Amino acid sequence: MSVVTLAVDAMGGDHGTPVTVPAVASMLSRHEHLHIILVGQPAELEAALKKQGIAGHSRLEIQPASEVVAMDDPVAVALRQKKDSSMRVAINMVKDGRAQAAVSAGNTGALMAVSRFVLKTLPGVDRPAICTAIPTANGHCHMLDLGANVDSEPSHLLQFALMGQAVVSAVDGVEHPRVALLNIGEEDIKGNEQIKEAASLLREHDRLNYAGFVEGNGIFAGEADVVVCDGFVGNVSLKTMEGVATMIAGMIREEVGRSWWRKLSGLFALPLLTGLKKRMDPERYNGASLVGLNGVVVKSHGGTGVQGFISALEVAQLEARRNVPALIRDALAEPVPG
Amino acid sequence: MSVVTLAVDAMGGDHGTPVTVPAVASMLSRHEHLHIILVGQPAELEAALKKQGIAGHSRLEIQPASEVVAMDDPVAVALRQKKDSSMRVAINMVKDGRAQAAVSAGNTGALMAVSRFVLKTLPGVDRPAICTAIPTANGHCHMLDLGANVDSEPSHLLQFALMGQAVVSAVDGVEHPRVALLNIGEEDIKGNEQIKEAASLLREHDRLNYAGFVEGNGIFAGEADVVVCDGFVGNVSLKTMEGVATMIAGMIREEVGRSWWRKLSGLFALPLLTGLKKRMDPERYNGASLVGLNGVVVKSHGGTGVQGFISALEVAQLEARRNVPALIRDALAEPVPG
Repeated sequence: MSVVTLAVDAMGGDHGTPVTVPAVASMLSRHEHLHIILVGQPAELEAALKKQGIAGHSRLEIQPASEVVAMDDPVAVALRQKKDSSMRVAINMVKDGRAQAAVSAGNTGALMAVSRFVLKTLPGVDRPAICTAIPTANGHCHMLDLGANVDSEPSHLLQFALMGQAVVSAVDGVEHPRVALLNIGEEDIKGNEQIKEAASLLREHDRLNYAGFVEGNGIFAGEADVVVCDGFVGNVSLKTMEGVATMIAGMIREEVGRSWWRKLSGLFALPLLTGLKKRMDPERYNGASLVGLNGVVVKSHGGTGVQGFISALEVAQLEARRNVPALIRDALAEPVPG
Repeated sequence: MSVVTLAVDAMGGDHGTPVTVPAVASMLSRHEHLHIILVGQPAELEAALKKQGIAGHSRLEIQPASEVVAMDDPVAVALRQKKDSSMRVAINMVKDGRAQAAVSAGNTGALMAVSRFVLKTLPGVDRPAICTAIPTANGHCHMLDLGANVDSEPSHLLQFALMGQAVVSAVDGVEHPRVALLNIGEEDIKGNEQIKEAASLLREHDRLNYAGFVEGNGIFAGEADVVVCDGFVGNVSLKTMEGVATMIAGMIREEVGRSWWRKLSGLFALPLLTGLKKRMDPERYNGASLVGLNGVVVKSHGGTGVQGFISALEVAQLEARRNVPALIRDALAEPVPG
């Protein structure tokens, strides 16, 4: 197995090194063909590595970066002022071929802007998109765009479809993933003009396994392997999922705390709740890919813990290993006229 | 207390009279100032009333209608061909002043088209919207539009905001409901042009308590009393909620069935799960109002059971009693220049 190198923005996110360094340690022990470059302030990193017991690890190096993009930094600051940020330096390493993927828990807008500026988009890609796995009743699907673009044109939705198809083929090994368009009804007459036009583009494309429309509830019923939508709609849907799951978790806690009998019930229900948590765990599904760029960039949720950051590193490793950008480039290449 | 009369499309929905008649019976016994006109095929209705033990009830009458709008009837069929449908006749009774509200579990597109054709929109309303209560961590909020309109202009979003505010003031008794715009970030710079323009319209309106942007997860955190959005986005968000809740319920069932120990746990967890179900029950939140029309029309979920249909009848009764259409008309009236 060939070596894959990840460049990790060690300073990004709400927590920084207390999350990123333990996650990196875990990844190094799990994967023997993995190299990691930790990007950030050397003194802080050295201390964190020592604490973690991985100082001097043979597959680990430190790349200094003097600045950090804050979670609330405007895109312009990240792009024009903080040129030595841990985020930017990590992405530079992908550009320079020193790493095959960059991972950051820093702010999404900044990460997308810097990635796009440094790596550029692949030929045939007008707009990169954000793509992530979503749990469904029988496994998971991938959904894109989740917020990189608002007001997508039908041609952009077609590009998202082709990119999503390439990602799912590569990371899930599904040969002909079912690609669906998110809409407000399953009948052909439903939806707005953008969706209807996109549907005909997807239907007519001979390298797409177009499965028709899927509604918001169909995402979770496992009706599609790739769910395509505009970033505004996708982001609202993703955040709605998070909101409902969080609310239900909170209600379970409240119900358990309501009386001694419920507390006892909760104790007995623990294996059940643990099983449920495992399947719905947002940390398990952490790690969104910025697809359509000349390189793999994975965005971790800013507030995630060590397990969540590990999930994001796994996504990056897998996409780098399968060389997803090359697959997307092929998927979007104009067919040679025969 | 004054008498309120509801016209009920007894034939609509997936189930028809086996759901609508028991729900009506329950409403009549709960509310002594409520009259109900059941609209549908007299023979079937008479039989159902007899079975239910409410034949000849003094506050109940039957209004014959020879046709039924099927769940998959195109809008044009409902509108132009089935002029004696139970749905249309029920709405006609609102127009003629014989009922203060109509309730139907028939198909949404047809119900909106027929309601709009028969009742017309209120002055100042360009487009009616679909509005419903959504459970939140600390109660509920109202959200609109949930699918009547796609590609809403900023001025439509302002009308939705004013209508939503009127509904919430009337049915929840909240004097100054917090009205928020659904967006993909809380910062002012986020979102598409439509949202930014709508935000400035809402901010500048002197009869709106504008609370800024809310994200998909914020809906459930109770950050707003009224959540305003385009119907495409709102419908995706609503269906996403349903999808996540259904998936979690299915996972709980699967986890309970996984082993004898889990089955036992599930038994102990029953009070907990029952408490949870009560708070999240979709039947409890059934009943979406078609707002902006010259009359109250409430749409029930097509597949709902008796309890769900009762919830929809309660929504209709409350909106009729508070005369929501008059409140919306006032809310949308141009202020007299002083």
